[in-house]
Amino acid sequence: MKTVEANELQNHIESEVKIHGSIYKIRKMHGFAFVLLRTKRKVVQCIYSEEQAKFPLEELVEESCVIFTAQVVKEPRSKTGYELQLKEVEILSKPAEVSPIVINNKLVDTSIENLLNFRPITLRNEKQRAIFKIQEGITCGMREFLMRENFTEIHTPKIVYAGAEGGANIFKLDYFGKEAYLAQSPQFYKQMMVGVFERVFEIAPVFRAEKHDTARHLNEYTGVDLEMGYIESFEEIMEIETKMLQNVMRCLKERYVAELELLQVELPEMETIPKIKFREAKELIAKEYHRKIKDYEDFEPEEEKFLCELMKQKTGSEFVFVTHYPSKKRPFYAMECAENPDETESFDLLFRGLEITTGGQRIHSYEEQVKKMEKRGMNVELFESYLMMHKYGMPPHGGLGLGLERFTSKLLELENVRLSTLFPRDIHRLVP
Amino acid sequence: MKTVEANELQNHIESEVKIHGSIYKIRKMHGFAFVLLRTKRKVVQCIYSEEQAKFPLEELVEESCVIFTAQVVKEPRSKTGYELQLKEVEILSKPAEVSPIVINNKLVDTSIENLLNFRPITLRNEKQRAIFKIQEGITCGMREFLMRENFTEIHTPKIVYAGAEGGANIFKLDYFGKEAYLAQSPQFYKQMMVGVFERVFEIAPVFRAEKHDTARHLNEYTGVDLEMGYIESFEEIMEIETKMLQNVMRCLKERYVAELELLQVELPEMETIPKIKFREAKELIAKEYHRKIKDYEDFEPEEEKFLCELMKQKTGSEFVFVTHYPSKKRPFYAMECAENPDETESFDLLFRGLEITTGGQRIHSYEEQVKKMEKRGMNVELFESYLMMHKYGMPPHGGLGLGLERFTSKLLELENVRLSTLFPRDIHRLVP
Repeated sequence: MKTVEANELQNHIESEVKIHGSIYKIRKMHGFAFVLLRTKRKVVQCIYSEEQAKFPLEELVEESCVIFTAQVVKEPRSKTGYELQLKEVEILSKPAEVSPIVINNKLVDTSIENLLNFRPITLRNEKQRAIFKIQEGITCGMREFLMRENFTEIHTPKIVYAGAEGGANIFKLDYFGKEAYLAQSPQFYKQMMVGVFERVFEIAPVFRAEKHDTARHLNEYTGVDLEMGYIESFEEIMEIETKMLQNVMRCLKERYVAELELLQVELPEMETIPKIKFREAKELIAKEYHRKIKDYEDFEPEEEKFLCELMKQKTGSEFVFVTHYPSKKRPFYAMECAENPDETESFDLLFRGLEITTGGQRIHSYEEQVKKMEKRGMNVELFESYLMMHKYGMPPHGGLGLGLERFTSKLLELENVRLSTLFPRDIHRLVP
Repeated sequence: MKTVEANELQNHIESEVKIHGSIYKIRKMHGFAFVLLRTKRKVVQCIYSEEQAKFPLEELVEESCVIFTAQVVKEPRSKTGYELQLKEVEILSKPAEVSPIVINNKLVDTSIENLLNFRPITLRNEKQRAIFKIQEGITCGMREFLMRENFTEIHTPKIVYAGAEGGANIFKLDYFGKEAYLAQSPQFYKQMMVGVFERVFEIAPVFRAEKHDTARHLNEYTGVDLEMGYIESFEEIMEIETKMLQNVMRCLKERYVAELELLQVELPEMETIPKIKFREAKELIAKEYHRKIKDYEDFEPEEEKFLCELMKQKTGSEFVFVTHYPSKKRPFYAMECAENPDETESFDLLFRGLEITTGGQRIHSYEEQVKKMEKRGMNVELFESYLMMHKYGMPPHGGLGLGLERFTSKLLELENVRLSTLFPRDIHRLVP
């Protein structure tokens, strides 16, 4: 007799079924007990009563893995329309110890330190795991959209000979006696692949050796990267991102309803996303919040929050595209504006106070790219294999990178990006 | 006027279209020329004639990116049923130099060294890129199947505190003053996640610091990893893999026909996959090929080839599951057979002479796992966070890891696994 899936139970009303799972919680009542069984996606409520069950309640231990034989009984008062009367149990395994952290309440009531230290256990909490089911839905909505739009999914190396983003924020490793690095992004490779497939994407780990210790930084995260050729302007990349995120919302609403309800998430409206130029945004924030502009080349974290507040008031949107970032703050491959080379054909996407995407058009002309690198004092020879694509012909192109964990945390209104990372890596944390 | 996709051209017969792409090849004939345009997925044949075109042929250069205006003319003699008569051209970019390697013949006629050194260019070859379109189809067929079977897609860290597979084949890096490693597999994490979601999978890079320099080894590859709980035997994992691979074949046959034809690939039949015990396989090979068994604990590479030959002769199958590998050669988490602890509840999948998958049932009991680690002289304390899941309760479970590039190379009958890797990493190669 095969076990049934939790979401098939309603097809078995008035019959006996076998169902397997882990005992999540036992709640003793007067004369009976509720036994909550954690299955793949649903926590299923079962009823234990001495009259029905052929085993003593004491045999059941939380976090035991079991196969229950149960009668599916019609019960109009239950939310599901049925209840599961336990008959028999087969115990597959028992925990060696009781978890030091209570994981089967609505919330895991402990510090974030503990939540992460005991990750293999705390993730078993119904709400904790729902975060990652939704994260699956996010990637699923992105991937489906991108494949429909004729993007090809690629796998590029994470051990690399040069960093794409430059700077010191790069992990070094010894590669058979040579110095190698962990990829800060698939930037070089996804550009190369535009010359091959025109449109490509990758969802894969990226590594940043940043020493920041904040609620929004991770040293390893999942990058959603896309790159596309034959664009007329970087605005096309913003359009693709808008449509991709709309598809994510659609996918979540269709297929992840239970998790959205459990986490009480209201998905943001996003028919259109407003746009504002970086410089105008700086000035607007300074004016509205009576602040002095200290740094004309970058946002301070509070400014990103203020801007999102302002745009929400003005437009109702919780997303905002900031465009035309200063050239000085953008990488060497960023295309400068023809009318003003101090600005780039680039954008960030802010969502609920946080930057979740960086994107823009790239330089596709070999001469132009070499000139910009020389102007920046870079050693062009080191980038020979990168520049190969430009030398032998590239279409106008651009793309973006989105941080999956950042997006997830903001979508679910989590206070820390570590909460939307299964096993986060930060400057202090390498375990578990 | 928007550009059309290559696969929509048949809907535009007798009308004028714009189409963009890269000029793949110009073939001058008597009085006209064939101009092959490389688009996202298809190479489209266009006809240049002086009567029709409003520009001289000399304007066109191979690897230029262009937008053509063309008339779609009905032409029953053409394979597609139409031909494209060029009218106008808008040139978006021109290469700075002519590629030193000819990429627009049927085959790129050069050494594998050159093929890889000039990867950003050689991948533009129609057949070269088709390999990776099919690779996309493989992951797509796997992912679709696994999600339908209620597996949850996860993202686990690649910077880790301990290696899952043990041994010296692990890359070290400095992680803010601590010693860290690159994950040899997501083994520990996918097991932990079985305690959370019961069934999980991940398709992500794995890193092996092996010094092998062969046609089948890579130092970084894409691991397809799955892990599932509530199994009665490791044979269930073999069943899931069989169904997953059947779905891959279905997916390729439905959606990747053009690439299969281009590469002249015959997909293998795989209704059932034969099984043989490791020890029996060793003896069978020894007998049939008149060899002496040198190593009772592992296969020599030729033995894997011989076994596949034999099984193909006997059963018609190009796949074979080898089961019950010796305990000594399997990792510390492998479950031993109850009736014979020298053997494990494990399997490899061989395909066309090569191991493409390793899998098996894992130990789920805390006491049993600790005992085995102690017997192996391991420092149990170092694995505290791994053992947490066992301590607080785990279902019987198991899983597998499949090398995407190996599988792709064997499916397409490529002679070297590097040929199914976009940018391979081997003991000598870190660039591009």
